[in-house]
Amino acid sequence: MILDSKRGDVGNTAERYAIEAFERYGADAVTVNPYLGRDSLEPFLKYADKGVIILCRTSNPGSRDLQDLEVSSGRKLYQVVADLAAREWNSRGNCLLVVGATYPRELAEVREIVGTMPFLVPGVGAQGGDVAAAVSSGQTADGTGLVISSSRGILYAGTDGDFSAAARSATQTLRDQINASRTASAR
Amino acid sequence: MILDSKRGDVGNTAERYAIEAFERYGADAVTVNPYLGRDSLEPFLKYADKGVIILCRTSNPGSRDLQDLEVSSGRKLYQVVADLAAREWNSRGNCLLVVGATYPRELAEVREIVGTMPFLVPGVGAQGGDVAAAVSSGQTADGTGLVISSSRGILYAGTDGDFSAAARSATQTLRDQINASRTASAR
Repeated sequence: MILDSKRGDVGNTAERYAIEAFERYGADAVTVNPYLGRDSLEPFLKYADKGVIILCRTSNPGSRDLQDLEVSSGRKLYQVVADLAAREWNSRGNCLLVVGATYPRELAEVREIVGTMPFLVPGVGAQGGDVAAAVSSGQTADGTGLVISSSRGILYAGTDGDFSAAARSATQTLRDQINASRTASAR
Repeated sequence: MILDSKRGDVGNTAERYAIEAFERYGADAVTVNPYLGRDSLEPFLKYADKGVIILCRTSNPGSRDLQDLEVSSGRKLYQVVADLAAREWNSRGNCLLVVGATYPRELAEVREIVGTMPFLVPGVGAQGGDVAAAVSSGQTADGTGLVISSSRGILYAGTDGDFSAAARSATQTLRDQINASRTASAR
């Protein structure tokens, strides 16, 4: 279970949010916001057997406002976040990155930076991201590395009595679309 | 009442968090994280009679990791956030910025960028920020513009039976320290 609470707070408070996520709610992984830096992430990272999913290049239009700013190293901010995650924050091997399906080029760029680190990929379904483009841009060499999330596209696939059948059907369709776009060796 | 939930999510989800903050909890203001950009803030901003307190230069050590990155305009990321807040996000006049008391130089820099926009200033008390330096660096020309917050320094001022008297005393001491550092005309 992923707790998508996008936490980002100073160390003392982050300690309590980590307890909330992993001990109170028993989440397997939690999403976190990197704007407050290392000490805001460390309380989550130290749960070595839990996943820490760091916002990198998000699926929404406003992601351009800060995440695409070019910093003095010539990289964009989201690329710096990817690099920090790969080089520093992932020392226990439990980091993932949020990279939106709505931006396939950025998916490929982040994949280039972080090697085989898994991505949580929102933005298919209601947000309009193309599944085939997201998979081909974001997958690892062996056709894995993506946790593709559709929320509204499945939750609201049907209404009233057909809810469960429609949700099942939407889920199966998405699964098949994903698998059809993976590298041949992984299918 | 300020809800210090540091929200930052895509527009559709942010809409619900804004309802949570302002309608369910009845908060007067809420803290938000700018990493996801304009559409993550807009659902809060449109409550014109509520305060939207945007993380800018936070009080923790990790604030350096991303917030201090120099972007290609020559400004640091937190200065870009201050500028976006002043020029774009504050069109309804309901924005505040979080700038930590632990960094007086940055308080002065942000004050220079945003004019009279109020700051929420954490970091005095348990985090060790100097009250006099924070007030003299962050105040407006008329000696106002700061909401200075001490949490642990007041909550944990005393233990057991003396709790309420110790909390009251710590609060009065902080108030007096703040007022002693304000420009003479404001006292």
